[in-house]
Amino acid sequence: MSLEMSHTGKLDALASLCVRVGVNLQPGQELIISAPIEAQPLVQRVTAEAYRAGAKLVTCLYDDPSAIRARFDHARDETLDYAAGWISAGITRALDAGAARLFIYGPFPDLLAGVTPERVARVHAAMAAATKAEAAFTADLRVNWCAIPFVTSSWARMVYPDVAPGFAEKRLWDDVFDVLRIGGADPVREWRAHLDALNARREALQERQLTALRFFGGETDVTIGLVRGHRWVGGSAVAANGVQSVCNMPTEELFTCPHRERVEGHIALTRPLALGGAIVEGLHLTFRAGRVVETRATRGKEMVDVLLSSDDGASRLGEVGLVPTSSLIARKNVLFYNTLLDENAASHVAFGQSYSACLEADGMPEREGANHSSLHIDCMLGDGRMNVDGIPAGGQALPLMRAGEFTL
Amino acid sequence: MSLEMSHTGKLDALASLCVRVGVNLQPGQELIISAPIEAQPLVQRVTAEAYRAGAKLVTCLYDDPSAIRARFDHARDETLDYAAGWISAGITRALDAGAARLFIYGPFPDLLAGVTPERVARVHAAMAAATKAEAAFTADLRVNWCAIPFVTSSWARMVYPDVAPGFAEKRLWDDVFDVLRIGGADPVREWRAHLDALNARREALQERQLTALRFFGGETDVTIGLVRGHRWVGGSAVAANGVQSVCNMPTEELFTCPHRERVEGHIALTRPLALGGAIVEGLHLTFRAGRVVETRATRGKEMVDVLLSSDDGASRLGEVGLVPTSSLIARKNVLFYNTLLDENAASHVAFGQSYSACLEADGMPEREGANHSSLHIDCMLGDGRMNVDGIPAGGQALPLMRAGEFTL
Repeated sequence: MSLEMSHTGKLDALASLCVRVGVNLQPGQELIISAPIEAQPLVQRVTAEAYRAGAKLVTCLYDDPSAIRARFDHARDETLDYAAGWISAGITRALDAGAARLFIYGPFPDLLAGVTPERVARVHAAMAAATKAEAAFTADLRVNWCAIPFVTSSWARMVYPDVAPGFAEKRLWDDVFDVLRIGGADPVREWRAHLDALNARREALQERQLTALRFFGGETDVTIGLVRGHRWVGGSAVAANGVQSVCNMPTEELFTCPHRERVEGHIALTRPLALGGAIVEGLHLTFRAGRVVETRATRGKEMVDVLLSSDDGASRLGEVGLVPTSSLIARKNVLFYNTLLDENAASHVAFGQSYSACLEADGMPEREGANHSSLHIDCMLGDGRMNVDGIPAGGQALPLMRAGEFTL
Repeated sequence: MSLEMSHTGKLDALASLCVRVGVNLQPGQELIISAPIEAQPLVQRVTAEAYRAGAKLVTCLYDDPSAIRARFDHARDETLDYAAGWISAGITRALDAGAARLFIYGPFPDLLAGVTPERVARVHAAMAAATKAEAAFTADLRVNWCAIPFVTSSWARMVYPDVAPGFAEKRLWDDVFDVLRIGGADPVREWRAHLDALNARREALQERQLTALRFFGGETDVTIGLVRGHRWVGGSAVAANGVQSVCNMPTEELFTCPHRERVEGHIALTRPLALGGAIVEGLHLTFRAGRVVETRATRGKEMVDVLLSSDDGASRLGEVGLVPTSSLIARKNVLFYNTLLDENAASHVAFGQSYSACLEADGMPEREGANHSSLHIDCMLGDGRMNVDGIPAGGQALPLMRAGEFTL
């Protein structure tokens, strides 16, 4: 007799967790899933669980990475500015009518290797424009939604290049299940306790009414102004449709809205960045008046420069997030090449679009300074050397983190 | 050195054939594919070939049979009348803007075994209503489109139950490639010759200006009135967008529009019928004034009765088609449990919706008598004993087929 949960048992637990806690699907609610084809065994479990939870209808829109690659390999240049706005319009209609959303995110880190960054940027820009209305439903938390990771074989190869193929997937799944708190007797109960702790620290940060954060340690020293009326977000949240959901699983971060013009100093990324299928390493960025004025990188600088110049807000910050080095994901000490996990392993900033959920609701709107862009790119800068101070209005710097840990 | 084309070589040929001859995709045109997940290796080839042919964008909407089954197993009864109208609205928008359509049809014959027919009928009716505008684009040949078969493992098991699993699929693929004219040196050239022959016979039937067809042989003796202003369809056809396509591959049939009130006699199906995942065998039907007044079957009568009573047009004919027993598919002498193939193996009638392509265009419309329904169900009644007479206005019966072969 084995006391350890089997792999398929853990997939069942993940399906149950994302339907019952992540999306928190309501009886009679429709569910729209996006997933790579490879994730079909998980989608199958999620679908059955969603119907058991009372789903009105479950639809999965599958992505096929080979089709994306085929377009870059064979499509004529003049066609690249077109995107399937019609499918996004359909999804938007369903979200508007009350559907919930689940993203099963299986990365393909090397998918676009060798494709010219200009072609990638054009396709990204066209897709961002075509999916704008749809994306607002999740970015602005109008409906309950959740994103969870799925281990693809190419992702496992990337994380564990020296491990034999089948074993690399098994090992990465073990990591992913661990940081998802799956494997114990009652994952749902463990998640409730974890969310309670995150929610309590979020409220403590909110009470401080800070005007800026200063990150210093290692090669980073940057002061990031916060928008007046900013809100700290993290843990669970109630969407505009009244349903409480957990938008990212795993989640360890607490984040809020920087001021687009009040960032001064320089940051050194502590982890590589997977960007449109390319890898960026050793990225250093210098800010003046909120804008990146200098980029350096040991690999992938070209892709960064192309993306940061794609619109006015692309070179300014839209998010700043705090994660202690004692978080489950940081303790793994694995570089996942996957934002959904890596951004929960370290404090980070993100270029591009801000989240309206990080701003005061309609009652007292002071949204001036919130950034807008078609992009949102997370960059990890936290590690065990990182200190963070909070600057209250007219007050003394308040230590929030020291050597990577919360002191709040 | 092998002179025989490999399996993957034949899949490549099928991809090329359906893009270049079937859909006849135009440079700059969008392509929307529907396919079961299992067909991904073929979809991948079609996608690359479509981009090589100049596609603006290729999108595949994958179906997952396990998700369909999960709904019937777990969904609450009160949710079954809902369908994803939002996705069909999106597709309709793309078709309206000029997209072409490819259906990769991989049957799952036993998918709904054990599900109550009422649940199946409710889901079918909701889907038919939600996809009405979308379906009109293909039924009325407003855009170039094509449907091709794909061998699923459950379909292969159905056709060859006594052959070991992997071998059953191989054997069925061999059949399918044969009837698709794939394997020779130049499938595209073979298709052009085949289409020329079909087109010539179609024109000969059209010139006869018949008022009715009489089928007699075996246990069948039925006279089927034809709508005044009917058109014979088959081979290739020019869609309303000006592009010539072949809507079904394989195709051996020539078909036209019966009069919904002028069918008298009885038919005995010569092949079983796969209906909503159930199998119907030994079906006998009696017609009075165009309507089925009696059904008998050795298996599955309940499903037939439920479906034929789902709306007023469901128990009347919308199509009649002629296929000689010397056709490639008939000569295979395999029961495929798949309309796309079986309807090309035998002369047939279809209950339900008629095709506007089988009626005179706007100039001289005499559409009275054309049938309307949310269903379209093909029933095979031809075999080597079947004779068909054509009845011209006020004239002598004209032999069209004798003992299953054209005499025209």
